[in-house]
Amino acid sequence: MQKPSIPKGTRDFSPEEMEKRNYIFDTIRRVFYLYGFKPIETPAMENLATLMGKYGEEGDKLLFKILNSGDFLSEVDSDDFENRRLVKLMNQMCEKGLRYDLTVPFARFVTMHRNEITFPFKRFQIQPVWRADRPQKGRYREFFQCDADIVGSDSLLNEVELIQIMDEAYNRFGIRVRILMNNRKILSGIAEIIGEAEKITEITTAIDKLDKIGLEKTNEELASKGIGKEAIAKLQPIILFNGSNREKLTALKEMLAFSATGIKGVEEMEIILNKTELLEIRSEIELDLSLARGLNYYTGAIFEVKAKDVSIGSITGGGRYDNLTGVFGMPGVSGVGISFGADRIFDVLNQLELYPDPTAQRTHALFVNFGEKEENFVLPLLFSLRKAGVNAEIYPESAKIKKQMSYADANRIPYVIIAGESEIQENKVSVKNMLTGEQQTLAASKLLDYLSSQA
Amino acid sequence: MQKPSIPKGTRDFSPEEMEKRNYIFDTIRRVFYLYGFKPIETPAMENLATLMGKYGEEGDKLLFKILNSGDFLSEVDSDDFENRRLVKLMNQMCEKGLRYDLTVPFARFVTMHRNEITFPFKRFQIQPVWRADRPQKGRYREFFQCDADIVGSDSLLNEVELIQIMDEAYNRFGIRVRILMNNRKILSGIAEIIGEAEKITEITTAIDKLDKIGLEKTNEELASKGIGKEAIAKLQPIILFNGSNREKLTALKEMLAFSATGIKGVEEMEIILNKTELLEIRSEIELDLSLARGLNYYTGAIFEVKAKDVSIGSITGGGRYDNLTGVFGMPGVSGVGISFGADRIFDVLNQLELYPDPTAQRTHALFVNFGEKEENFVLPLLFSLRKAGVNAEIYPESAKIKKQMSYADANRIPYVIIAGESEIQENKVSVKNMLTGEQQTLAASKLLDYLSSQA
Repeated sequence: MQKPSIPKGTRDFSPEEMEKRNYIFDTIRRVFYLYGFKPIETPAMENLATLMGKYGEEGDKLLFKILNSGDFLSEVDSDDFENRRLVKLMNQMCEKGLRYDLTVPFARFVTMHRNEITFPFKRFQIQPVWRADRPQKGRYREFFQCDADIVGSDSLLNEVELIQIMDEAYNRFGIRVRILMNNRKILSGIAEIIGEAEKITEITTAIDKLDKIGLEKTNEELASKGIGKEAIAKLQPIILFNGSNREKLTALKEMLAFSATGIKGVEEMEIILNKTELLEIRSEIELDLSLARGLNYYTGAIFEVKAKDVSIGSITGGGRYDNLTGVFGMPGVSGVGISFGADRIFDVLNQLELYPDPTAQRTHALFVNFGEKEENFVLPLLFSLRKAGVNAEIYPESAKIKKQMSYADANRIPYVIIAGESEIQENKVSVKNMLTGEQQTLAASKLLDYLSSQA
Repeated sequence: MQKPSIPKGTRDFSPEEMEKRNYIFDTIRRVFYLYGFKPIETPAMENLATLMGKYGEEGDKLLFKILNSGDFLSEVDSDDFENRRLVKLMNQMCEKGLRYDLTVPFARFVTMHRNEITFPFKRFQIQPVWRADRPQKGRYREFFQCDADIVGSDSLLNEVELIQIMDEAYNRFGIRVRILMNNRKILSGIAEIIGEAEKITEITTAIDKLDKIGLEKTNEELASKGIGKEAIAKLQPIILFNGSNREKLTALKEMLAFSATGIKGVEEMEIILNKTELLEIRSEIELDLSLARGLNYYTGAIFEVKAKDVSIGSITGGGRYDNLTGVFGMPGVSGVGISFGADRIFDVLNQLELYPDPTAQRTHALFVNFGEKEENFVLPLLFSLRKAGVNAEIYPESAKIKKQMSYADANRIPYVIIAGESEIQENKVSVKNMLTGEQQTLAASKLLDYLSSQA
């Protein structure tokens, strides 16, 4: 006998949690479809050759590797074993790993299926990913990503549509958000203008921390990264930038006048903002120069969404990239994408109590079971409800009525149908509304109409 | 540069395949909800302690094991390595594995969450499972299972409801099926009556092969398994059983009169058949004594569904069990369940060309992109369509019209909206029906009405 448990960092989802999760995925999926995105799915396991080296050295360590089936020692070098060369041994014993994100599998998919795909390709993908991160509150080793990307198009209209998608999804959730936007080209321009083009990563990483550590510490960090005094001085107006998006863009235009790249970034940002103004965007869009996520990957727009009424990290992020599939030998595939963080959205909806009552998937009516004879009377009624599309059940055995009522309560079933001897004689049923406690008797033939009118 | 591939036995799903798969899962899920079943999900990874020893020695080998993160050699015994003790080494290096089916994780779930669950518990679960089987046509290393179980109730009404679910699902698919039914107790009774109670597994395995290898070989196999001549002679009428379900039950009652277990099985079967007759079951239900799937696990009814018009193995199977969770230290949990084989259903629907045209998830209208000015004219129109729930897109850049039309074709978009200079001047749009080739011009404000009326 063993007391069962599950691997740390993983979760079971109960029916109640599934209701909420399905609500999140269904909402996002519906918006993706509305904007013409199409689903794909890829296998949980990828070849390690596909995954390794794509997420940095740290990422390689966080991949879950799968032991080869059969004789997993057949390729193992005894010398590597004796000297505990872990990476070499792992490569000798494991060919496959679990996917770490949806981007690399998508790049692999595009490369392998390039001849079947019509570009621009608008795909979405909602699947779990696995990371051997240290589990902590709100961070799991198995979690879902919800990604949408358009590849094979450089048009900035794609950025605009992704902004609309984020706006629409959060509007449907009832979550008020700020959509933060930046542009890698602007960041490059700034680094160029202050004479530290090589240090763009250090600069943006430091700026990114401004909110958390304050101005003084940010400047100290910049200095510690070898950024000169003069350059830091030149950076100050940018770090402390204030004003509307348009004011920021005007200031940037002036500042970046001698950086072709920088000006390109400002122009891209302007085009995107102009287009969004033609549309009804309900979320606040904010140009945020400290936004620098995944900098080495992104080449144009960078997005991030923050909930206004809950203090939590970003709940959606994304950006434009130039070269999705180069590493797989397919050059020139540019694209732009976003990823919704389902776990954080789950937490935000919980905190703000924004979940609707998703009754559509619940049982609407439970028939009480009084035994053989009564069962035979209600079975055809039950069947007729289901035939009409009403989710309905009969308690499977003639347990005590109290137990059957508790079952209805626990499963939040709103109507309980009772047909005892007296009802059967008159071809009637009693219907109890579990919310109000009211009960009424009606002709068995009227049951469907009655329940439908109450829905 | 590497040429990417995916692990053997795994698959990518393109948007077209996703449409079909979603149709299958949505249909099954809808029927599960209709009958009051609730979804759960469990993690892809389970502790190996949960999985090992549950699927026989062969099953243990087919589990995908996950290499421990960090120093996976820390527990490894050098002596075990030198002597290539694979199982021991695997246990030292791996704590987790990928789930092999949905039954063991469900049993683990019920045990761990026993205090939160209201019994009877009607759960369904649609998730992938992984098996390191040798890949072959129609057999994959990653595939989906769709399971529904009722646990915590001995009532035969549950069996009846599962029959209804199978009948309803296949009716919705348009697949004509035979539902085969047997009962473990009847098989036990037969083994008892012919004096070979110990050999029940051998007997049913042999009978199970009758269809494939014929009567003579079946009898030879029985003899080779040590079943006596007399016993084999007594078995002949059962093997060659013919007639209606009722005739079979009458004959069995006579034959099994002196086996209490056998008679119990016959009675269970009668009750189930009587109840189904109260309902509209459209599938043929057939008592099939050669049905013996998962014999060691099942204790009562055994089910299997075969497609009538396609030659393929069983497409759904299941049965009643007495002791789901005993191995995890929770005794007395009986239940009954079924599992739909999504991959085979996929093949059957393909062969019979039964897929509906699932247009609901496709893009309904594509706006042609003629450039900046035209884009600004159509963007608000596009937005108003989406606002009304119409899946719609604009081609993201002003490519050649032929390319844009090919995109609409490839994505099976039924309507293409054209707004060039002349249309814009008159505040009109032209709508091209991609199926008929017809094109007509209408006021921009009438577009939504027009598309809705054509849906």
